[in-house]
Amino acid sequence: MRNPVISLLTDFGSADHYAGAMKGVILGICPKARLVDISHEITPYAIAEAAYTLAQAWRCFPVGTIHLVVVDPGVGSQRRPILAQASGHYFIVPDNGVLTMALGGISPVRVREIAASRYFRKPVSQTFHGRDVFAPVAAHLAAGVAPAKFGRRVADFVRLDGAGPVQVSARKWAGKVLKIDRFGNIVTNLDWETWRRIVRGRFQLNVGKKKVSRLASSYAEVADSKPFLIRGSAEYMEVSVNQGRAADVCGLAVGGMVEILIL
Amino acid sequence: MRNPVISLLTDFGSADHYAGAMKGVILGICPKARLVDISHEITPYAIAEAAYTLAQAWRCFPVGTIHLVVVDPGVGSQRRPILAQASGHYFIVPDNGVLTMALGGISPVRVREIAASRYFRKPVSQTFHGRDVFAPVAAHLAAGVAPAKFGRRVADFVRLDGAGPVQVSARKWAGKVLKIDRFGNIVTNLDWETWRRIVRGRFQLNVGKKKVSRLASSYAEVADSKPFLIRGSAEYMEVSVNQGRAADVCGLAVGGMVEILIL
Amino acid sequence: MRNPVISLLTDFGSADHYAGAMKGVILGICPKARLVDISHEITPYAIAEAAYTLAQAWRCFPVGTIHLVVVDPGVGSQRRPILAQASGHYFIVPDNGVLTMALGGISPVRVREIAASRYFRKPVSQTFHGRDVFAPVAAHLAAGVAPAKFGRRVADFVRLDGAGPVQVSARKWAGKVLKIDRFGNIVTNLDWETWRRIVRGRFQLNVGKKKVSRLASSYAEVADSKPFLIRGSAEYMEVSVNQGRAADVCGLAVGGMVEILIL
Repeated sequence: MRNPVISLLTDFGSADHYAGAMKGVILGICPKARLVDISHEITPYAIAEAAYTLAQAWRCFPVGTIHLVVVDPGVGSQRRPILAQASGHYFIVPDNGVLTMALGGISPVRVREIAASRYFRKPVSQTFHGRDVFAPVAAHLAAGVAPAKFGRRVADFVRLDGAGPVQVSARKWAGKVLKIDRFGNIVTNLDWETWRRIVRGRFQLNVGKKKVSRLASSYAEVADSKPFLIRGSAEYMEVSVNQGRAADVCGLAVGGMVEILIL
Repeated sequence: MRNPVISLLTDFGSADHYAGAMKGVILGICPKARLVDISHEITPYAIAEAAYTLAQAWRCFPVGTIHLVVVDPGVGSQRRPILAQASGHYFIVPDNGVLTMALGGISPVRVREIAASRYFRKPVSQTFHGRDVFAPVAAHLAAGVAPAKFGRRVADFVRLDGAGPVQVSARKWAGKVLKIDRFGNIVTNLDWETWRRIVRGRFQLNVGKKKVSRLASSYAEVADSKPFLIRGSAEYMEVSVNQGRAADVCGLAVGGMVEILIL
Repeated sequence: MRNPVISLLTDFGSADHYAGAMKGVILGICPKARLVDISHEITPYAIAEAAYTLAQAWRCFPVGTIHLVVVDPGVGSQRRPILAQASGHYFIVPDNGVLTMALGGISPVRVREIAASRYFRKPVSQTFHGRDVFAPVAAHLAAGVAPAKFGRRVADFVRLDGAGPVQVSARKWAGKVLKIDRFGNIVTNLDWETWRRIVRGRFQLNVGKKKVSRLASSYAEVADSKPFLIRGSAEYMEVSVNQGRAADVCGLAVGGMVEILIL
């Protein structure tokens, strides 16, 4: 690869040395690697949050990018490190479900178990595989080592339970909150395609303590401070307040329920 | 450009995927771009804070740098995206006043409205122009597209109201707090040149609940924990406490008033 | 240097312009520099915390890396800026003890006082030597200026008091907390080598309000939520809780005491 890009997504935070140590290891193996942070601020151990963040970011990167994800509550256990290939991108991750949202709907996905310890940093710590396993493998891949060198093909990656909304009666669906972003926007698990299919006229969303029945096409179009629904940049329906925090206004957090009524 | 540098300044935070998505888009269009974060931690929607931060940072960068600012409460409205050129630097920003402090005193500034949608990422979301408009335009500019290709010249950029101190009587000036930095330093809007012009002897600053009458030339020179005035690195007068937080000691926040008495 | 890597470690935070300004200055002098953040989130003025973080990170970087550390409560005082060379790495730091843990056990270390003001950014602010002294010196070094050009050799760098555990009786040692990381792990100052030497059988650690007598080899091996001891990735003994926060469970903070009893 001529300008290998490696994206990093972890729950290591920005205060400790962990992310910096991984970057140092990578540059020692592949000096030409271009390192790009997606986030190091995933809530500790929050695999679903990392899965959402990866799903939103990876397609923005050029073909050939290596996405290095270390949200790894099972470090040191039997969970396996894997290398997945899909749509020309590479994913180096612990096999704990973090690929579910990014690659769940994509085929083919080639998955390999990472087992070739000659590419690891020695000695391998039992608590920091980001530095000793994932980072060096990503760097060797960026430096030109063929995927097959890292380990044998395996059937599939671990998938978390389905994330879409569920129909509970003829005119009622149950959704949930995937994400509260920095602006307090409530990202629901109701994707735009499903929305267009199930809602053809008036609707009501019960979102925490608020009822939402307005669909806006931009934030600025809404002059008051009432929550409204909008097609988000992630292609999920979001509940927002113009220059306010919908999550606070509605009193909802990640994992909370959203009720969709077709009127 | 051979080593095009793109600086990023947003209110997207470091936890969500937004900044990473912008970087991925840029590297897909201009693989040689050098990406440098100024900050992603601007308070959401805080245009004045972004204007201050940009003003302090941009001159430190080499000529040819493209400064990409996305603090954009008006996303999706009629506010226009602009490309400004001044002193050999480029600025790709929403036209909402964010250039006021950086370029307010500079002439000439060439301003263009960014309108050539062939340089946008498709489809253009109504809520994330950072990814779909600003980032790809910055990347195409870095990759060699001429400024004139992005849109027609316009007269000027939006300017926020003047930020300097105001003389209220013969020996009294009214200033305000531009910024509280991480160390609790209170950056006033009293610039060093104005200070030297109006204060030639003794003075008193009324800063929240404290009166400050000492001018120090370094932090270390002040042994006690009393607030003092110092010429800051941003060329504004700052109120500081040696290894303490002046903002807490004085009880002042951004936008607060500072009274300057010439004794 | 062909691909000069400069790592950055400061207490400037990620919100203000300070770190970005330093990066702009570096790229203006040495456009080829590869900038890698270790952390900007060191607690303001916390030299010992920076010393720990640097010690954990620097060895992960390739030989030739320039480590730029600006945790500098003495800025503007007589504390001197130094350039240290050890094991093929370079360190550009205020001489305040921040090298203690990284280089305390290494020999030889060549130390120079940085005095050649022709390599500084002018005018030199009294409050921001990161931008005006340390960053430009790092950039000139990366661009090929010989270390000797920056100033004369000096005998040594400032060393903070020793950080190891102390034996208080035949079967009792007193240690302390070096670091609480993002996951709440308690990093003690009891290094692995010392641990292996002094503990050969059963033991008890008194860690805040908890007694710890289990040594685990991975987080996942411990099914309950009780704190245990583990060999950390930094080669210090750490007290951890599987997917929990040991620091909260034990009620301990940085600098707190840990008692080690040999049973």
